[in-house]
Amino acid sequence: MSLRVDLNCDCGEGYGGWRLGADEEILLLVSSANVACGFHAGDPGTMRRTVALAIGAGVAIGAHPGLPDRLGFGRRALTVTPEEAYDMVLYQVGALDVFARAAGTALRHVKPHGALYTMAAKDEALAGALVAATRAAGKDLKFVGMAGTAVERAAAGLGVDFAAEVFADRTVLADGALTPRSHPDAFVSDAAEAADRVVTMVRDGRVRAITGEWVSVRADTVCLHGDNPEAVAFARVLRERLEAAGVAIAPLRSLAL
Amino acid sequence: MSLRVDLNCDCGEGYGGWRLGADEEILLLVSSANVACGFHAGDPGTMRRTVALAIGAGVAIGAHPGLPDRLGFGRRALTVTPEEAYDMVLYQVGALDVFARAAGTALRHVKPHGALYTMAAKDEALAGALVAATRAAGKDLKFVGMAGTAVERAAAGLGVDFAAEVFADRTVLADGALTPRSHPDAFVSDAAEAADRVVTMVRDGRVRAITGEWVSVRADTVCLHGDNPEAVAFARVLRERLEAAGVAIAPLRSLAL
Amino acid sequence: MSLRVDLNCDCGEGYGGWRLGADEEILLLVSSANVACGFHAGDPGTMRRTVALAIGAGVAIGAHPGLPDRLGFGRRALTVTPEEAYDMVLYQVGALDVFARAAGTALRHVKPHGALYTMAAKDEALAGALVAATRAAGKDLKFVGMAGTAVERAAAGLGVDFAAEVFADRTVLADGALTPRSHPDAFVSDAAEAADRVVTMVRDGRVRAITGEWVSVRADTVCLHGDNPEAVAFARVLRERLEAAGVAIAPLRSLAL
Amino acid sequence: MSLRVDLNCDCGEGYGGWRLGADEEILLLVSSANVACGFHAGDPGTMRRTVALAIGAGVAIGAHPGLPDRLGFGRRALTVTPEEAYDMVLYQVGALDVFARAAGTALRHVKPHGALYTMAAKDEALAGALVAATRAAGKDLKFVGMAGTAVERAAAGLGVDFAAEVFADRTVLADGALTPRSHPDAFVSDAAEAADRVVTMVRDGRVRAITGEWVSVRADTVCLHGDNPEAVAFARVLRERLEAAGVAIAPLRSLAL
Repeated sequence: MSLRVDLNCDCGEGYGGWRLGADEEILLLVSSANVACGFHAGDPGTMRRTVALAIGAGVAIGAHPGLPDRLGFGRRALTVTPEEAYDMVLYQVGALDVFARAAGTALRHVKPHGALYTMAAKDEALAGALVAATRAAGKDLKFVGMAGTAVERAAAGLGVDFAAEVFADRTVLADGALTPRSHPDAFVSDAAEAADRVVTMVRDGRVRAITGEWVSVRADTVCLHGDNPEAVAFARVLRERLEAAGVAIAPLRSLAL
Repeated sequence: MSLRVDLNCDCGEGYGGWRLGADEEILLLVSSANVACGFHAGDPGTMRRTVALAIGAGVAIGAHPGLPDRLGFGRRALTVTPEEAYDMVLYQVGALDVFARAAGTALRHVKPHGALYTMAAKDEALAGALVAATRAAGKDLKFVGMAGTAVERAAAGLGVDFAAEVFADRTVLADGALTPRSHPDAFVSDAAEAADRVVTMVRDGRVRAITGEWVSVRADTVCLHGDNPEAVAFARVLRERLEAAGVAIAPLRSLAL
Repeated sequence: MSLRVDLNCDCGEGYGGWRLGADEEILLLVSSANVACGFHAGDPGTMRRTVALAIGAGVAIGAHPGLPDRLGFGRRALTVTPEEAYDMVLYQVGALDVFARAAGTALRHVKPHGALYTMAAKDEALAGALVAATRAAGKDLKFVGMAGTAVERAAAGLGVDFAAEVFADRTVLADGALTPRSHPDAFVSDAAEAADRVVTMVRDGRVRAITGEWVSVRADTVCLHGDNPEAVAFARVLRERLEAAGVAIAPLRSLAL
Repeated sequence: MSLRVDLNCDCGEGYGGWRLGADEEILLLVSSANVACGFHAGDPGTMRRTVALAIGAGVAIGAHPGLPDRLGFGRRALTVTPEEAYDMVLYQVGALDVFARAAGTALRHVKPHGALYTMAAKDEALAGALVAATRAAGKDLKFVGMAGTAVERAAAGLGVDFAAEVFADRTVLADGALTPRSHPDAFVSDAAEAADRVVTMVRDGRVRAITGEWVSVRADTVCLHGDNPEAVAFARVLRERLEAAGVAIAPLRSLAL
């Protein structure tokens, strides 16, 4: 059986005249784009242009909804009810969806941004709300999140196709959780090493924890960053080594395939 | 041939904890609801609840996109390019559309709000942008605006079904334009008189100007207000007298009918 | 020694065309006004008009800074760093201060709003940031908060005059904390009973907990609400009974007095 | 008599995590900084840091209030009443003022941003509102604008010290107005030529129009840009040549000097 993995990156994260990220470059290296929807970043014009850019690069397009906090870039936890979370995600996915449809394509996935992503991983009710909003927005939409967390359980419960995300530049603890950013070994800064780790994850379904143990892992999609030149260079090396190792880079498969 | 007209009202124009308008009452009197989409008013939760309210009241649902100016309630002119206008309207219609779809229904029309409505009536490029966004959002969406203005021409040019709106509580000049609000006779405060005027517009296709001349008018839909108890009482009388005069109140017809 | 207490209320909490609260009525019943500063509610025009209203009513004016979350009215916890909290409070107090100065008066106190108020009570670093911002904004500004919490300690540590706030319509637990809103006996709905409780707090420095124990309490200022007609009626009865009991209602005293 | 001129630049125009402009570099080349106040750009944290940066660079600090339109960076005309303009400028100046005071300094001037600047130059009522807000915010604040426009007249009428601004990189028409940006000769791209023009303006009080005529001009302060490396290089050359020509670069003088 052939090996494959999706590479995803966040994009369209400017706001008005403020730019962020090297979207043009990183979109040429990934297979899926998570487009900001106007709450933590992005705006109608940026969304339209980013969708066009993603189509031009031949990548699958997904929604990247966030908390309504531009000042904090959606990275600050905000206490929202499941109902509020459902509403804000549905609104954002709908807003991006119409730009995709107007451009002749369709959204493929939803990946929450920042604090919404991490909050939902730990909160069953919030996870349920996000997955339910995804299902309400389109029955073929996949939900992207961390395996083994509340969002995977919610997706299973609601019958939504779940894509397990891993982070190329992050290490994990013995229980599979990400090593906290404050830890000196939290990051994998060498692209070649990161690529080797991803190849192992995709081929063998496991990764070595910082404490040495092998940890089972499911890697449907790998999160890349495009917010600076180094990140783009990292992504380039990662992509090249994955391909050299026989891992095809392609968008998330539909359940039907 | 039977007489019919649509009655429309703006609704869902609160924001978070701030309320505005007697939506529950006015929605029982109209046949179409223009739902605010989060830019001049409205927010994801309010949109979901307003869509549910409109469905419960059995009225057709349309989008009511506005300028990004909550502080000015979308009533202050903002110089936007046609491209910016296209993007902001498409975004808002898409955001409301997904709530309608999630509730098992579909949007029927788009009616711009406040300054966007009046700016587009006079600006061919802006009108074209708004109509193009409406068409991009859904091929069956009607565009609601004032007959004889740039928006009607844009709709004709782009092949979008146009619904001509009249105002029950406003008088017109000899050229058919609304009498400026500063004029002492700008408003029709008596509901019975307003109803008689609307009956004449629907039945005879004309209305008497404040200077006495008869002016040709097309009245597909009548704009009502629900922002205070008097406005609701006015709407109630108007509806009763229209029905007594044999004018059926029903949503805008599809072109196919 | 004569008995006295300050009555304070939040005001200026509309936004643009959206109104909230019966400011005109409640300001005639209190001695201090906490004016919203544009983040959770309020806007420049509302701030100017509310300052004028407060001056006309002869009440002391304070700033009521909140989290940058209009949609949630500043009531949703947002994870902010102490530095972010310092900056947002200083900004808001400065913005209101200039309206007070332009109107010929000066701010007297700062009382954080909603989630910022409750978060700071439990978080020493956040409390320190809020009190430091208050001190930076003006050396004579008092800080209003709950006695025995982190904000009182921060005020003591930074040499800022602290005013202890009690809630006329809330009961307390045996440890002096507010009874959670979910508890059936959390609220005191009878104004006469509330007044008796306040008189006891001011005169005897104690209040009876819902479990029967007497709890020591310091009551420099009593929080009233003006968000509905019942709240205003409640405030009116409270004020009358306090005065009848010989408790003078007056703004917070300066340390120098 | 010695020649002198002020060089000013806009700064602090990022928002949250979005950066804009090379503030650190340009502040070393100018004598006055116009700090964004949170409406078109800037936020509380950015304001505090920008004030500190300006103090470190030894430049005078002024407020740079804009229209409430982050998406359009305050460059889109918004129809506001004079009262709304007064309120929004006073709010913003007050918010920046408290950061200046907290850092031990004081604001020296107010220069409106973008569309607010150009709208006020042509609208007497709006100009009056902006100047009145400046006076209300502080009696020693200077107002920076284009000579010969409504703002200069408003400043004269209200007794506010006016500083005439010229643009180093723009040409003028025979009537002294800026050559429209659409004109091929609107810009002076050569820094040496720009410097020569400024020296002539400061020394001789005149400048040559694109049509050849000499136009009288008053140049109290020269607007520089710091939004890209070329702009900073331009500013560096300009500054060096002004100094070489014996023109001292110093903040705006108080009237009393």
